[in-house]
Amino acid sequence: MRIGFIGLGNMGLAMAGNLVRAHHALTVYNRTPGRAAGLPAPGARVAKTARDLAADAEVIVTMLADDEALMATMFGVDGALAGLCRGTIHLSMSTISPGLAERLAAEHETRGATYVAAPVFGRPDAAQAAKLWIVAAGPAAAIERCLPVFDALGQGTIVVGTSPAQANVVKVAGNFILASAIVAMGEAFALVRKYGIDPGRFLEIINEKVVRSPVYQNYGTLIATEHFEPAGFKLRHGLKDLRLALQAGDEAAVPLPLASLLHDQFVSAMAQGWADIDWSGVARVSAVNAGLEARDKAPA
Amino acid sequence: MRIGFIGLGNMGLAMAGNLVRAHHALTVYNRTPGRAAGLPAPGARVAKTARDLAADAEVIVTMLADDEALMATMFGVDGALAGLCRGTIHLSMSTISPGLAERLAAEHETRGATYVAAPVFGRPDAAQAAKLWIVAAGPAAAIERCLPVFDALGQGTIVVGTSPAQANVVKVAGNFILASAIVAMGEAFALVRKYGIDPGRFLEIINEKVVRSPVYQNYGTLIATEHFEPAGFKLRHGLKDLRLALQAGDEAAVPLPLASLLHDQFVSAMAQGWADIDWSGVARVSAVNAGLEARDKAPA
Amino acid sequence: MRIGFIGLGNMGLAMAGNLVRAHHALTVYNRTPGRAAGLPAPGARVAKTARDLAADAEVIVTMLADDEALMATMFGVDGALAGLCRGTIHLSMSTISPGLAERLAAEHETRGATYVAAPVFGRPDAAQAAKLWIVAAGPAAAIERCLPVFDALGQGTIVVGTSPAQANVVKVAGNFILASAIVAMGEAFALVRKYGIDPGRFLEIINEKVVRSPVYQNYGTLIATEHFEPAGFKLRHGLKDLRLALQAGDEAAVPLPLASLLHDQFVSAMAQGWADIDWSGVARVSAVNAGLEARDKAPA
Amino acid sequence: MRIGFIGLGNMGLAMAGNLVRAHHALTVYNRTPGRAAGLPAPGARVAKTARDLAADAEVIVTMLADDEALMATMFGVDGALAGLCRGTIHLSMSTISPGLAERLAAEHETRGATYVAAPVFGRPDAAQAAKLWIVAAGPAAAIERCLPVFDALGQGTIVVGTSPAQANVVKVAGNFILASAIVAMGEAFALVRKYGIDPGRFLEIINEKVVRSPVYQNYGTLIATEHFEPAGFKLRHGLKDLRLALQAGDEAAVPLPLASLLHDQFVSAMAQGWADIDWSGVARVSAVNAGLEARDKAPA
Repeated sequence: MRIGFIGLGNMGLAMAGNLVRAHHALTVYNRTPGRAAGLPAPGARVAKTARDLAADAEVIVTMLADDEALMATMFGVDGALAGLCRGTIHLSMSTISPGLAERLAAEHETRGATYVAAPVFGRPDAAQAAKLWIVAAGPAAAIERCLPVFDALGQGTIVVGTSPAQANVVKVAGNFILASAIVAMGEAFALVRKYGIDPGRFLEIINEKVVRSPVYQNYGTLIATEHFEPAGFKLRHGLKDLRLALQAGDEAAVPLPLASLLHDQFVSAMAQGWADIDWSGVARVSAVNAGLEARDKAPA
Repeated sequence: MRIGFIGLGNMGLAMAGNLVRAHHALTVYNRTPGRAAGLPAPGARVAKTARDLAADAEVIVTMLADDEALMATMFGVDGALAGLCRGTIHLSMSTISPGLAERLAAEHETRGATYVAAPVFGRPDAAQAAKLWIVAAGPAAAIERCLPVFDALGQGTIVVGTSPAQANVVKVAGNFILASAIVAMGEAFALVRKYGIDPGRFLEIINEKVVRSPVYQNYGTLIATEHFEPAGFKLRHGLKDLRLALQAGDEAAVPLPLASLLHDQFVSAMAQGWADIDWSGVARVSAVNAGLEARDKAPA
Repeated sequence: MRIGFIGLGNMGLAMAGNLVRAHHALTVYNRTPGRAAGLPAPGARVAKTARDLAADAEVIVTMLADDEALMATMFGVDGALAGLCRGTIHLSMSTISPGLAERLAAEHETRGATYVAAPVFGRPDAAQAAKLWIVAAGPAAAIERCLPVFDALGQGTIVVGTSPAQANVVKVAGNFILASAIVAMGEAFALVRKYGIDPGRFLEIINEKVVRSPVYQNYGTLIATEHFEPAGFKLRHGLKDLRLALQAGDEAAVPLPLASLLHDQFVSAMAQGWADIDWSGVARVSAVNAGLEARDKAPA
Repeated sequence: MRIGFIGLGNMGLAMAGNLVRAHHALTVYNRTPGRAAGLPAPGARVAKTARDLAADAEVIVTMLADDEALMATMFGVDGALAGLCRGTIHLSMSTISPGLAERLAAEHETRGATYVAAPVFGRPDAAQAAKLWIVAAGPAAAIERCLPVFDALGQGTIVVGTSPAQANVVKVAGNFILASAIVAMGEAFALVRKYGIDPGRFLEIINEKVVRSPVYQNYGTLIATEHFEPAGFKLRHGLKDLRLALQAGDEAAVPLPLASLLHDQFVSAMAQGWADIDWSGVARVSAVNAGLEARDKAPA
């Protein structure tokens, strides 16, 4: 399949590599040049612009940081929309706002192309191992045509609807649930610490005996050991996703007081200069507010 | 071992039964009489008052609904404290406030007795199967002496400290974490439902692929299917435990904004008349606030 | 002074009328035509486009509903920016986001024009009576030149800084404070009502004896009498301003948990279909959550 | 009138002094002795116990710090209840929980005495000047008999119902409204400060032009100038009153998310060691969370 791939960050590069390994004919575009060198042989053709890339692709895959990055790539004279052919499928795998997904779906439709949303759960190591979980939404026929791409990238694809925005809602709602678990542990650990209880022991009880989730185990261990660097997923990106959840709630008139609370804890962490620590480091806000630590202590 | 057991509710009766089966000599006391008939042979001696029971026990086990019920049993002319002998251990397994645990520990000490806190994780079916997880705190020697009791009741005991209140803090912090997961799912499900996404499908994604916890699976299924009766754990009891968490936070100067938010959602559920549905039914507050359902619909 | 005035809604029409009365030479533009007929004699010239209007104005005044409306008027081939002359001052009086103010300030600067932000406190009746309070920010010389406009529109102008966004921050922070008072009363009234206390009597105590504010008196009376229609200021617009406050906080890393809470209460009101009642009607969310009223009762 | 007065703190001493000046025959009791020396001539008889005081009073006035202090004075062998005569009125002016008010009302009734709740709005200087506002609830005949006391202490009395707890609900709801105003200003000031706007200028706009309340003026000035010592009303006492409001809400199934948020901000302030600064100092929590100040800076 002739695939155009836009966005060679940590996630995108790993995913594009898997498409190369699956023998797809890949053209890539990345705002910062030179990243294509990291692809396995035989590598990919490098397009000069997103427009050029779009002009010659059956499927365009985008994997970008946020709404802004995706818009910068799609719109404008050199943007992908300007080169888009009738019949092309845009498989948009970034975590973006449901609102932008709706807008882009309409833009593609007017050009005779199809927009499919397919955000993923999984970190760069899962992307590398083709072990992502893919959440897809869009016209059924288009999703069908994308199966070879999904097969090369993930361990499974769940279709949640025919409207692309639905996949984005699932993704941001999912990250909201993870952030809830992190902040709940942050508060609980602050409480038990102030009563002289070892947070690791508490985690052992609550996760091994009750919740039994690898997510709680991983984040709980980071919080119990206060080990927030290097970041697996940066706090600033966690905040971005909470903003998307709140925006989705706002647009559909769904009050999300818990998401708001998480958002505010993340903003407080930003104000302390912790943008680039792991998002589980938001737990430090709870610890500091309980007087457990000096605020200006460098997180580590 | 001569054990006095106070509190033959659903949990207590199951636990007392296991002590009988383990061949301990049991004396029981329950405010409402007649419950001892539910014990397996050879059954137990029934004390007329908590005071009588206390006078003849090596270990007193209490398993009561809340602070008030425990206080009613301990204090007063017929209360257990009035009959307490030097050297007796009070194994307090109810979910009560850390503050009351501290007060009772002091009361026992002045009488030459020992107070050990050992709240449990697990529902009546786990109690029946002797599969509880026990969280213990108190003087090490006293905990040591209670091991035969723990062996008869649970599948494991974790000691979290030498101050009894610590076990109660762990228990209420643990239930707070469970309530957080419930309310997070409640909000997330309201969001996805309003975007036309099947909540069961969403749960499949977020739990089977990401969180992978039996707790999320169980509560998530109840929420997705709106199946809140009969209650496994009543909403009013969930609220009680959140109050205990907030009280523990208040006493130790630990702000718990997430626990406060959960508390307020539970209070809102109480105001709608949902005190006796399962605590996962608090998710209906999120659904109703999003305009998804009429508030006066009977939960089912 | 040759003034171009864009936006003849309830506020804008009243303000433009005062400029006519002050003998300024007015050109007006409104997306919906025909509104200029409501101006006092000698009336105003009507421009066909915002661009035309801009080409012939010393000062352009904009008074529009929100960011979107202002952007639609400024950008594009017929937008005001396309017609803007060097030396023109754009006096932007709408309640918009600080972020858009910054962006527009930069756009004007590159065209040799000057952007001054001057949002107002006051309702249409205050606009009519030239009794607005104007909060201005921008280059001092430009503000100086706008004094004749301020004199014709308000009873006073307070300059808060040289960066236009600052005036918008003051405005949204001010509306946030008003919304806080409303929601605080909503909760307090729900509490006293449930204890059988007359909310009007409570208001008498708390405002006449303690707070002594006309704002509390007005909104408190609306809440106590549940009289939310017709709207003085629509709930949907209150929500818009809370969004702007949160956005301003987000951009400057200022967590605003109280603003988040207000936002969520307003979103909940939107979900019940109360977008067009007075913003003090958000108090019904507190009443309904306390079980005081059926959610589907039509507010009145 | 033969009045027994219990509680000679700053408020109580000023109030008792006014009763002396109004020629009432006063007997006083205070846990810490010696305070009666501060009364004006001819002074008061000093009772050895609350029981003795109660035995010889037509009206007992209590003005104590909290539920605990009042309970310590009422119950026990030397408590006021033990000495209470049939027909005596207990005028309870402390800010206590509605729950305790209900309990005490019942205790008095069984003894043929009457409990009237009459908490006050006003600080020690208002108490000194007999300018308190008194909120009364209880049997109408008993309130009638207390009018001479009210006349000597305040500038007005508002009766809110016949059930004593109602007056306490009004009082804690009133303090909740004041705390809301403080925290709203704290957030708003943090926001404007981070945008480089002078908080005093902001206060001038929002209060002088819009809210126009002496409460906002006073607290706003303290916050703008960060002048939190000496305390007019200690932060720890503000927290106490928020706890009472939440407890009242909890008992009547009224969710109070705004009160919860305020509570958590106050708890956070306690954790930073700010228990004894003025309650307006809770605004520093917002400032610190926005990264505006080091947390360990001594408030001044």
